[in-house]
Amino acid sequence: MITSVQNNQVKNWRKLQTKKYRTQSQRFLIEGFHLIEEAIKSGWEIETIIIQNGIDIPDWIPKDLTIHVNTHVFNEISQTETPQGIAAVVKMKELYPKHDGIVLLVDAIQDPGNLGTIIRTADAAGLTKIFLGKGTVDPYNDKVIRASQGSIFHIPITQGNLLELIPELQAKHYMIVASTLENATNYMDIKPREKMGLIIGNEGAGINKDIVAIADKTVTIPIYGQAESLNVSVAAGILMYQMRK
Amino acid sequence: MITSVQNNQVKNWRKLQTKKYRTQSQRFLIEGFHLIEEAIKSGWEIETIIIQNGIDIPDWIPKDLTIHVNTHVFNEISQTETPQGIAAVVKMKELYPKHDGIVLLVDAIQDPGNLGTIIRTADAAGLTKIFLGKGTVDPYNDKVIRASQGSIFHIPITQGNLLELIPELQAKHYMIVASTLENATNYMDIKPREKMGLIIGNEGAGINKDIVAIADKTVTIPIYGQAESLNVSVAAGILMYQMRK
Repeated sequence: MITSVQNNQVKNWRKLQTKKYRTQSQRFLIEGFHLIEEAIKSGWEIETIIIQNGIDIPDWIPKDLTIHVNTHVFNEISQTETPQGIAAVVKMKELYPKHDGIVLLVDAIQDPGNLGTIIRTADAAGLTKIFLGKGTVDPYNDKVIRASQGSIFHIPITQGNLLELIPELQAKHYMIVASTLENATNYMDIKPREKMGLIIGNEGAGINKDIVAIADKTVTIPIYGQAESLNVSVAAGILMYQMRK
Repeated sequence: MITSVQNNQVKNWRKLQTKKYRTQSQRFLIEGFHLIEEAIKSGWEIETIIIQNGIDIPDWIPKDLTIHVNTHVFNEISQTETPQGIAAVVKMKELYPKHDGIVLLVDAIQDPGNLGTIIRTADAAGLTKIFLGKGTVDPYNDKVIRASQGSIFHIPITQGNLLELIPELQAKHYMIVASTLENATNYMDIKPREKMGLIIGNEGAGINKDIVAIADKTVTIPIYGQAESLNVSVAAGILMYQMRK
């Protein structure tokens, strides 16, 4: 059992709390029984399972991967308010869409809870791929993973430059729809197609103007009351489900 | 300028962080320029505006209501991570729906961020009233108010027992729809009506069975991918906007 936070393995686990080290090592940290179960069920490779001393280990946990630590060490690694005493190091892996369909393009979403919820909704709505543009929070951030409720393991997610990706999708006959607050048609007029891309933008600033300019269509969700706007995760959910109709 | 946290006024402001004292005093605390502006614009009565020393006061702030405090005192009152140095004590007030329409019934939503986002979406979707059932987080909780982005000042919200409220609405010819995960028809089959009520349930447990039993209809949002469910705020948004169609 590891009992010192000075232990090299513990130091490396802690470094996984930074985007830089996650990218460099191509590994990330997840916490809690549900996420670990989802990672295993979805065929992601788990390198190590870190168990806090005294935690009951369910049968489905691969025993050969477990390393035991004391409470002090676990709290050093944990990033949750009420830790479950179990965490895992997962190797990054690229997923590929099984077929063409509806894809999501995310421009600079900054709140990890929003991005995680949007990933969860995209999975639920059966979207085939998510592209994360520049300025978007790292999808391997612990709060994104938690809010995604494991959907991060189900749906292909890649990072890239939306200004380059959109013309590539258009060349493959994807119709690209941008969600904006002004100068747009009602979202209910979107006629679902086999190949579509939905762009959603930053919480405050919306979608970058250069990106809106190359979209095929702009749509908006009408506001009937006195609210100024919708929360971006809610708006994304309404639009993704509309596209499925 | 108040400089001591032992000051009686400061002690009373701090007590407004508890539901018990908010209910007893019929007052609540809000923070930040945007929320205070929304409260004023929406005609809510502001009792006191608390200003941290050194903060620039915009013209629209009623000067006769301001009390200045030092940074230490302001931090005692503040419940935000990055305080803007302005807070206000607002008197509770009952709003009334202007006409019949779509109402929302909330059964035991516990996360303040979820409830606030749902209130914001209900406002945006033009719903006429929100009923909060037992076990639902206090709408005057600071996190609920913040996530509502001021919509708490726009839409009538009352607390009550849903098992009593639903039959009353049904007697007034409201069709009551419950959102469930099983034994339900596709939400797209909801035919919008003039008078409808939508029930949404607790994040984990869903809607209480006794409440589902008295609803006129149960509906569900299909899951096309591998996610187990949708986030409750996203699901509520999709359903409320469907009812507006």
